[in-house]
Amino acid sequence: MPTPRKWAYSFGDGKADGRGDQKELLGGKGAGLAEMTRIGLPVPPGFTITTDACARCHSAGGKWPSGLDRELRQALSKLERTCKKEYGATHDPLLVSVRSGAARSMPGMMETILNLGLNDRSVEGLAEVSGSRRFALDAYRRLIMMYGSTAKGIRREHFENAFDLVKQTRTRDRLERASDERVLDTDVNAEELEQLVDDFKRMYREYTGEQFPQNPLDQLKGAIVAVFDSWMAEKAVTYRRVERISGLAGTAVNVCRMVFGNMDEDSGTGVCFSRDPSTGEAVFYGDMLINAQGEDVVSGIHTPEKLAELKTLMPEVYEQLEAARAILEVHYRDMQDLEFTIERGKLYMLQCRVGKRSPVAAFKIAVDQATKGLMSPAAARRLVKKKYLPKKYAVAAAKPVITKDEAIQRIEPADIERLFYPVLDPDVKGDELERRWLGQGTGAVPGAACGEVVFTAEDAETRATTGAAAILVRKETSPEDVGGMYASAGILTATGGKTSHAAVVARGWGKCCIVGCGALAIDYNDKTMMLGAEVLREGDAITLDGSTGRIFKGRIDLVRPDAPPEYRTLMGWCDKRRRLKVYANVDTPSGAEKGLDLGAEGIGLCRTEHMFFDTSQPQRIRAMREMILAETPEHRRRVLEKLLPYQREDFEGILTVMHGRPVTIRLLDPPLHEFLPHHDNPAGQQAVLDELNESAPSPVRQPPPEDSDTQQAFETKRMTIEDIRRRVDQLREANPMLGHRGCRLCISYPEILEMQVRAIIEAAVNCARNRTKVLPEIMIPLSIDPKELSILVDRVRVVADVVFKEQNHKVKYLVGTMIETPRAALVADRMAEVAEFFSFGTNDLTQLTLAISRDDAGRFLPDYVDPTKAGVFSDHPFQSIDIEGVGVLLKMAVDRGKAARPKLKLGICGEHGGDPASIRFCEEIGLDYVSCSPLRVPIARLAAAQAAIMVKTAGTRIVKSKAKPRSVVRPGRAKGRTTSSSRVAAKERATKRKIRRARA
Amino acid sequence: MPTPRKWAYSFGDGKADGRGDQKELLGGKGAGLAEMTRIGLPVPPGFTITTDACARCHSAGGKWPSGLDRELRQALSKLERTCKKEYGATHDPLLVSVRSGAARSMPGMMETILNLGLNDRSVEGLAEVSGSRRFALDAYRRLIMMYGSTAKGIRREHFENAFDLVKQTRTRDRLERASDERVLDTDVNAEELEQLVDDFKRMYREYTGEQFPQNPLDQLKGAIVAVFDSWMAEKAVTYRRVERISGLAGTAVNVCRMVFGNMDEDSGTGVCFSRDPSTGEAVFYGDMLINAQGEDVVSGIHTPEKLAELKTLMPEVYEQLEAARAILEVHYRDMQDLEFTIERGKLYMLQCRVGKRSPVAAFKIAVDQATKGLMSPAAARRLVKKKYLPKKYAVAAAKPVITKDEAIQRIEPADIERLFYPVLDPDVKGDELERRWLGQGTGAVPGAACGEVVFTAEDAETRATTGAAAILVRKETSPEDVGGMYASAGILTATGGKTSHAAVVARGWGKCCIVGCGALAIDYNDKTMMLGAEVLREGDAITLDGSTGRIFKGRIDLVRPDAPPEYRTLMGWCDKRRRLKVYANVDTPSGAEKGLDLGAEGIGLCRTEHMFFDTSQPQRIRAMREMILAETPEHRRRVLEKLLPYQREDFEGILTVMHGRPVTIRLLDPPLHEFLPHHDNPAGQQAVLDELNESAPSPVRQPPPEDSDTQQAFETKRMTIEDIRRRVDQLREANPMLGHRGCRLCISYPEILEMQVRAIIEAAVNCARNRTKVLPEIMIPLSIDPKELSILVDRVRVVADVVFKEQNHKVKYLVGTMIETPRAALVADRMAEVAEFFSFGTNDLTQLTLAISRDDAGRFLPDYVDPTKAGVFSDHPFQSIDIEGVGVLLKMAVDRGKAARPKLKLGICGEHGGDPASIRFCEEIGLDYVSCSPLRVPIARLAAAQAAIMVKTAGTRIVKSKAKPRSVVRPGRAKGRTTSSSRVAAKERATKRKIRRARA
Repeated sequence: MPTPRKWAYSFGDGKADGRGDQKELLGGKGAGLAEMTRIGLPVPPGFTITTDACARCHSAGGKWPSGLDRELRQALSKLERTCKKEYGATHDPLLVSVRSGAARSMPGMMETILNLGLNDRSVEGLAEVSGSRRFALDAYRRLIMMYGSTAKGIRREHFENAFDLVKQTRTRDRLERASDERVLDTDVNAEELEQLVDDFKRMYREYTGEQFPQNPLDQLKGAIVAVFDSWMAEKAVTYRRVERISGLAGTAVNVCRMVFGNMDEDSGTGVCFSRDPSTGEAVFYGDMLINAQGEDVVSGIHTPEKLAELKTLMPEVYEQLEAARAILEVHYRDMQDLEFTIERGKLYMLQCRVGKRSPVAAFKIAVDQATKGLMSPAAARRLVKKKYLPKKYAVAAAKPVITKDEAIQRIEPADIERLFYPVLDPDVKGDELERRWLGQGTGAVPGAACGEVVFTAEDAETRATTGAAAILVRKETSPEDVGGMYASAGILTATGGKTSHAAVVARGWGKCCIVGCGALAIDYNDKTMMLGAEVLREGDAITLDGSTGRIFKGRIDLVRPDAPPEYRTLMGWCDKRRRLKVYANVDTPSGAEKGLDLGAEGIGLCRTEHMFFDTSQPQRIRAMREMILAETPEHRRRVLEKLLPYQREDFEGILTVMHGRPVTIRLLDPPLHEFLPHHDNPAGQQAVLDELNESAPSPVRQPPPEDSDTQQAFETKRMTIEDIRRRVDQLREANPMLGHRGCRLCISYPEILEMQVRAIIEAAVNCARNRTKVLPEIMIPLSIDPKELSILVDRVRVVADVVFKEQNHKVKYLVGTMIETPRAALVADRMAEVAEFFSFGTNDLTQLTLAISRDDAGRFLPDYVDPTKAGVFSDHPFQSIDIEGVGVLLKMAVDRGKAARPKLKLGICGEHGGDPASIRFCEEIGLDYVSCSPLRVPIARLAAAQAAIMVKTAGTRIVKSKAKPRSVVRPGRAKGRTTSSSRVAAKERATKRKIRRARA
Repeated sequence: MPTPRKWAYSFGDGKADGRGDQKELLGGKGAGLAEMTRIGLPVPPGFTITTDACARCHSAGGKWPSGLDRELRQALSKLERTCKKEYGATHDPLLVSVRSGAARSMPGMMETILNLGLNDRSVEGLAEVSGSRRFALDAYRRLIMMYGSTAKGIRREHFENAFDLVKQTRTRDRLERASDERVLDTDVNAEELEQLVDDFKRMYREYTGEQFPQNPLDQLKGAIVAVFDSWMAEKAVTYRRVERISGLAGTAVNVCRMVFGNMDEDSGTGVCFSRDPSTGEAVFYGDMLINAQGEDVVSGIHTPEKLAELKTLMPEVYEQLEAARAILEVHYRDMQDLEFTIERGKLYMLQCRVGKRSPVAAFKIAVDQATKGLMSPAAARRLVKKKYLPKKYAVAAAKPVITKDEAIQRIEPADIERLFYPVLDPDVKGDELERRWLGQGTGAVPGAACGEVVFTAEDAETRATTGAAAILVRKETSPEDVGGMYASAGILTATGGKTSHAAVVARGWGKCCIVGCGALAIDYNDKTMMLGAEVLREGDAITLDGSTGRIFKGRIDLVRPDAPPEYRTLMGWCDKRRRLKVYANVDTPSGAEKGLDLGAEGIGLCRTEHMFFDTSQPQRIRAMREMILAETPEHRRRVLEKLLPYQREDFEGILTVMHGRPVTIRLLDPPLHEFLPHHDNPAGQQAVLDELNESAPSPVRQPPPEDSDTQQAFETKRMTIEDIRRRVDQLREANPMLGHRGCRLCISYPEILEMQVRAIIEAAVNCARNRTKVLPEIMIPLSIDPKELSILVDRVRVVADVVFKEQNHKVKYLVGTMIETPRAALVADRMAEVAEFFSFGTNDLTQLTLAISRDDAGRFLPDYVDPTKAGVFSDHPFQSIDIEGVGVLLKMAVDRGKAARPKLKLGICGEHGGDPASIRFCEEIGLDYVSCSPLRVPIARLAAAQAAIMVKTAGTRIVKSKAKPRSVVRPGRAKGRTTSSSRVAAKERATKRKIRRARA
């Protein structure tokens, strides 16, 4: 076995072994602690055990890695020297906390054990030093509870119930004394706590069969192993699966000297954001609790106070915190999510990380950071005066800290989607809202949702499978609920603040969430909730307004909101920077309008077959069916003539809307059986028969009178159910994906191509005559060979020429092909000799390259995408281009195609056209445009800009992984320029000196 | 328009514009005439109009190409100078024949018009010069008939009926004179012929509305256009489609001075082969007619005499012909098919080409030509003495003319197939044969056939679609019958010799054929035939013995014959030369034995699923179904334990037979629904249910007693029809090809892999214990990714290691994968890091690369393969590897795979493994083996040797077309060495001088 790498990274006293960019190794929390220490912020000393150690533990089947012992002892000694205390000593013991921290934030997956080092003897030492036996016993009580639940799996409720019992007893006392004062944790006295510690130890013994460990080192190792184990716990694995987190070695473990927010009324703890995570406003925003310990804020059990309270209670501490806010935002150049503790008036920073934010906030913060400072020069000067803030930071905090390019990179594609999440229809009258009003909570995630009430995560998931929208109503949520939260349309909790589990998780998904609705009473057994005067049962409708925290009975209409001004600003920046054009996939004039509205610059895929399914015009599908059932080319041709005007009309509409922008029209693609009822649907077949035979005028009964021969043939012919059945049987296919469809139909039935091309060209000529600019691009689907393609391209040109001659008017048009079979990609050079453009149909190309039918993949593909199962694909290959497989074919086709025809127009029109990682790949291989559904057009515009910036910065290369998530920290970079590590180090040293000087 | 290329190539008087290697341009016949002229053989002078001119004519919509007029006149003038006669002159006119001739032989597609240049005046001139008015009139009569039918589409029967009428009148006369002498064409006298010419001209006028052209040049141009047109006639197009002939520009037109085989009794005409085309024996073999004109031999209307007759009738001419036989075989170095005419005792060679031959003859001729001379030195000396044969040719004719490598190249893969065509079972008793004997014809193509009598080509095709074997019985066959001939199992005609249309076409296919059965009377109206005393109706069974010409009533058992000794000789040469190993695809011990017998060196594909379908052991499929219906991994595992012994037993059997040769075993591949009745087959589902619930002992009812928990779970569980229906529905797939199958099953159900690997390894260990050498190669199907593959390879190795440990015995084995998805090929480098071998599954790879399901391709793929329709593929892509598409993936996978693992074993196990063109491609890209069905193993051995020789000769390059057909002529090459064209020309000149000297 090779010698292990360094497994423990110390920090403290202004020095740190690790750095902020070592998140993979130290976890986000560990890296942040090291970095904050380096830049001189007040961080309790400690050390981080690396994710490697965790991975080693798991690969060894959960055994304590050999070699870790030595590292642990060394790091602990160093910590003892720094703190000048001995860990777990009888007198004035050094106590530590143990916290998990992976490279990516996993809200609620955090394991924490506080007060390690306390035992039956050191608790007395702590009592002595702190001067409060009550405090010491409370700390010991917490340790046993946390250790017991985290390391030994004893349900936390057991401990909590015991604690509640004490409080209830006290409540009875108070009631007897006719007091209605609420009993707080802090009301429990030392004697009661002493009893509670004994009870907790007994419970520990009963559940585990062993004594609560008195050896502090045993405690520490037990806690570390518990954190390691938590990485593979089911809830963590589920979370990673849901969040598609993969490639991480494990969690790091942070061991820190304990600081106590619950030591007295000059102590406290809190969580804050450098800007408002909901609105993005540049205000200092957070929650805090006085005389409380860390987890009380996040857990949502206690409802916290606003951070602003601190300004009144401890103004100096507040200003120090404000300075830390400015330093960290300048240093990390992004909005920060901070945790702090105040111990007897002294501030300690416990965590910093890039803060999660709402979509509106994402745009506002990005645009603000790129255009103005965090605080006014005056505010900054005030902090400099107090020597809390070094001048350099003050200067930087009053200016933009990022470039516009960086601002664009800061937006996640999902932010755009979430930006347009629904809100209450403003047309709904105020009195109706009043009538339906049930109550008010804290709006944790903006956006509104309505759905059916459910009370458990399982019920939410079940309801989601039926397609119904569910609103998950809980007292509080826990990591076990993540699946159900994801499946719900909205979340409502009785407890918790904006930083509670429910709020943080929901915000990550941009899912409507209201927390802290104290008036809400839930009966899980009856599956009912009471709010205001109303009782709602499971399945009753409810509407949440996540922006305001209001809760309404029944369903209220929702609408998509207008974008905030920063959205338009930032999208404008995007449009200036991107090279890729963005087209939309639409099949109707109204779709085209929507696409234009959202910024589409053309239509990349107009599916002609969709026009036949317009239910408002049943004669279309009827004619299509008649065409399919026709037995001779002549009959088929005659029915196609009936279809021609419909198609021409649609094309005219679309071309008119697009007014000279490219409109890529795909010739008929699906197998013909898709237009007929299935073979085992005789009723459907009968309906089609009746429809065909009843529809008048129909050539089946009323042939064109000018042709008496055909007339005769027709008058004797009336369609029978047998005709339909026979044709349906003829058209059945074992593998329709690989069957008679795409341009194969036009090889078999040239008259279909002729009709469609005629409709397109006639429409174009009609528009052009009316001075509407047009640019139709005729696209041939599913081609596999240059000869096949040239036969069809030639036919297209012949028909177009005929129309031009008839109409005595020419228009410009292109003829190209989809590249959606592996063979087409392989022979792309020769395809490009025939086609003027390629449009990559990556849906089919993926199906064929991977031999996976999207329709059938449900039974096995999830295992292939799930990193905890086979984990073959890092992304779902039908959502994000399989770069290593399909991508190779795309690249090959682009290179070969361009070699044969340098001006070849290249685009993509598969689902992947709206996927950011795929768009980046498209940028890298040099496509000209991406085309996607209209709603994804803005996302594509953003992704295209991000890709262009990334390629500009990095030079073209094939990406192997998706774009990095927002939480990437880039310490030591300023204004987009990378500084060398030595320069970074020098800067850090200087910063630290200044901070120390400022504090001194 | 660019100046046309030279369109008329003259020959005559020992000189020729063209050469023998210009078949594409001059057609086979034209090239042969030029070459024979060059080497000094007596060829009537003339000129050839090129295939380019024909192509130009068709591309101009059938118009006479401008510029051809000038060329025609020039060539005609030259011919007139050579012959010292004027074309169509009134006195002593030069007459010419016009014959079509494409680059590839198309039997019966030949258009011929003789005696052009005759008109009402020149016929008198001819009468005068020939001294026979009867002869001249007969020639004129033939011209009108041939011109009328060929150029004007008048049915030949009309003319023939008129001629018959004359003969019948004469017959009546004879009957009146009580003579029973048969009336021959030659009995018709000049007066009658004069009348007939008038009748023919009248008929011509009536049918065409115009006079028979009197201008000789109009005649000539009309004849040339008729030949051009014949290229696009339906029968020719059909023939090319059936024969898969493509890439030819058109037909050439040969214009030759007429020589008359019907001038007197010293005249005649014939067709001969330099060796016997049926047996391959080195005897001079042919048919001839005295005092008859060319087409009379080939048409089969007249039954000809044996060539040997000529020896008696005209011994000098016979010896000259023998000399021509030797010269041409030496010159062309292959068996020749010759046409000749004798005019008043002077020999003229009209055609030479490489002769078609039976499979037995192909082997005998190839081996003979490579090991001994055509004739004995004594026989050659005799011809030299007579000065008919130059000495150099005599020397060469007594020695081998080709190398063993060339002998191998001469065999077509189809020859091997046909070699083993059935013969009458020798165990059938002689008296039974006698009892069933119906009659005797000429055995034109060896091999026997039995089937149901049909009388029209259409009926043969119809019957073939029902799967029934048909025997096509016709008076004679014509090109219109080709489709029906192809569809028949055997052909029987009343007229014709071994060179008749029926014989030549059937020989090309190796299809059993008996011709010239004079006793056969057919009534096409009644659809009956009479032979011997029997009347057979359509549908009655009949058996033909093509080797002996015997015809039997009813069905006689047929068996596959033993190979001739030359087969073993030549295959031995092949085995020494090939680099590619040849494996067989077999799934049973008996299959393995068969494969070994036929020369297989391993098993390239053992499909484990086939073992479950063994109907003699229904418990296998029952257990398989139970496995599929199992609802828990535990139940599945328990049922798999029941399957294990079956599989192990099969593997033991196969490994034992193969005794150390590689045995590639593919893990379960098909989707599980293939083992259950279809969703719309409730009866089948019920049957499965009954079977499962009745079969005892079954774990569904009788769980393993040792496990009481499971037992309980089971005793309460009995399968219902709902269970089956639900599972069948679960397993339904929209596109099974792209569904849950291949190694995806093992990802979902690891226990299946575990059982199969255990069975394989246990079988191998058992064999090894019994001192049987084993080399199992475990093959994972349908892999798409290295990670997926490594998961499964690891599982295989874990199971193998467990078995080795249990058994305390190790064996060598390999683990590899099929490369049958495009993605696997694209990531082959990383696949090769995991797999020890690749086996290309080109069936699926073709389906996926081309997006064509073999099951559904019937509706459109024929058009894609048909050169007269879309003609996208030159070969059927499921028969012969699509080199331009699939081939690119194969090459890529080989190169990447080898780069990652230089010792990677590479093979192919798709249908293409037995296809010669594909095998050549496999040789070129460097595979190690091909695997195919046992029956194709010998073909693969041959093709592998041919490929190795070709690659050795040409250097490795990717082939774009299939191996050239046998009829390729390589003039001027001797003993496999290519000589430069100047050396060839010099040699030719020398040869000609010698021949002339010899004749002088």
